[in-house]
Amino acid sequence: MTGAHNGRLTVVGLGPGDGRYLTPEAVDALATAEALYGYGPYLDRVPPRVGQSRHPSDNREEGARAAAALRHAAQGTNVAVVSGGDPGVFAMAAAVCEEIEAGPAVWRALDVVFVPGITAMLAVAARIGAPLGHDFCALSLSDNLKPWELVERRLDAAAAAGFVIALYNPVSRARPWQFGSAIERLRRHLPPTTPVMFGRAVGRPDERVSIVTLDAADATVADMSTLVIVGSRETRLIARPGRTPLVYTPRAVAEASA
Amino acid sequence: MTGAHNGRLTVVGLGPGDGRYLTPEAVDALATAEALYGYGPYLDRVPPRVGQSRHPSDNREEGARAAAALRHAAQGTNVAVVSGGDPGVFAMAAAVCEEIEAGPAVWRALDVVFVPGITAMLAVAARIGAPLGHDFCALSLSDNLKPWELVERRLDAAAAAGFVIALYNPVSRARPWQFGSAIERLRRHLPPTTPVMFGRAVGRPDERVSIVTLDAADATVADMSTLVIVGSRETRLIARPGRTPLVYTPRAVAEASA
Repeated sequence: MTGAHNGRLTVVGLGPGDGRYLTPEAVDALATAEALYGYGPYLDRVPPRVGQSRHPSDNREEGARAAAALRHAAQGTNVAVVSGGDPGVFAMAAAVCEEIEAGPAVWRALDVVFVPGITAMLAVAARIGAPLGHDFCALSLSDNLKPWELVERRLDAAAAAGFVIALYNPVSRARPWQFGSAIERLRRHLPPTTPVMFGRAVGRPDERVSIVTLDAADATVADMSTLVIVGSRETRLIARPGRTPLVYTPRAVAEASA
Repeated sequence: MTGAHNGRLTVVGLGPGDGRYLTPEAVDALATAEALYGYGPYLDRVPPRVGQSRHPSDNREEGARAAAALRHAAQGTNVAVVSGGDPGVFAMAAAVCEEIEAGPAVWRALDVVFVPGITAMLAVAARIGAPLGHDFCALSLSDNLKPWELVERRLDAAAAAGFVIALYNPVSRARPWQFGSAIERLRRHLPPTTPVMFGRAVGRPDERVSIVTLDAADATVADMSTLVIVGSRETRLIARPGRTPLVYTPRAVAEASA
């Protein structure tokens, strides 16, 4: 139906896990939406509501999902697209913008709102200490949409300049060797004792977090849902008797590595 | 008092503004704390509770504040340290880890918990579109704790490798020229039309967000509370009749810039 209003599309970040990370702004957006779009497992995290239609889709269909949601919103509907973590970090927000730019003029007239969420690197870092406590970067290892040579160039630049590196999308069925190759590459720049942190399903019952050294990092530990943080030369470990160590990157840079 | 338990220190991220960004995990941590520590204006965001002591301190006293909170927790108290945004991103988490490493052994026996929050770059990006939609880095412009030459090296590396750059702490009273110098530096690497985004006080009544081009970026617009995002060569603007433009960085990298 074409209502009195223009329609609205809200892109909602659910955070990494259960409801503990869901902001009030996200709760409101989910409660007022007339239609929900999203990757099936993310939609499953949102309790059903009477009168709200649900449109799950497969992973790797971001463009088609965004376009379907925009078409629905352009009919005068209040539509929410749900995204894991933060929608602006390797998630649905860029896909929605791409479709708006390529789509019909009416999509530019829609009310489009982005609701931020806790992205995976923040949740994993919080479980471990403060590994992102100093300058850092976030890099997707997926070479579906950029050449692998560019990934390598960015890994080189980030490690050589002393950024802590958060790696999103380390592995998928179609990309089995890339993460191992990235770890090899980082070994050229960083000491063997550099902390490497794996975080999976933070805030969910099957949460798994582990800390190893760069020389012992086993690429087969990571899967599609793993977020990896590779420390810089400054990143340190605090041993704690009877507890897991804290890993952090100090706010000050030592003279030697500057 | 020295209770039956060891004491607990929780470092809580409040997010960037009002309660709309406060996660349930953060709400719980604030509700159960017996003592609250933090920079005054951040503490002021937390409603007072009977039986809960409050210990505000000045900005730039992170180390002393962390140590005071740890001493209090070591007496068997449930202490929360509040932080704007995410505590792990240029905020209190690293300061707490530094003090634990340098402090008495009993501090390593404490229960220490980090509660993530929406960090400024995610909130500012969400107001604008999806400028962090592809690889990006977060860099503090403060040279209080690292040499300015290192800041310059990181700006060069990040811009040349095609990262979008989020700049934290662009300006302070003691650091008046650094942000202007950083903008000059980035002009060597990036086209004059590169979008530069300023965000201040997102989610608060005095919120201010603006989008300019790199050649027109005026360093005097930024203050201590401003978060700046500088696009990459890929970052694009979608004009929208009667609305502010959307700025986003596409998921795919064009052949030309790869």
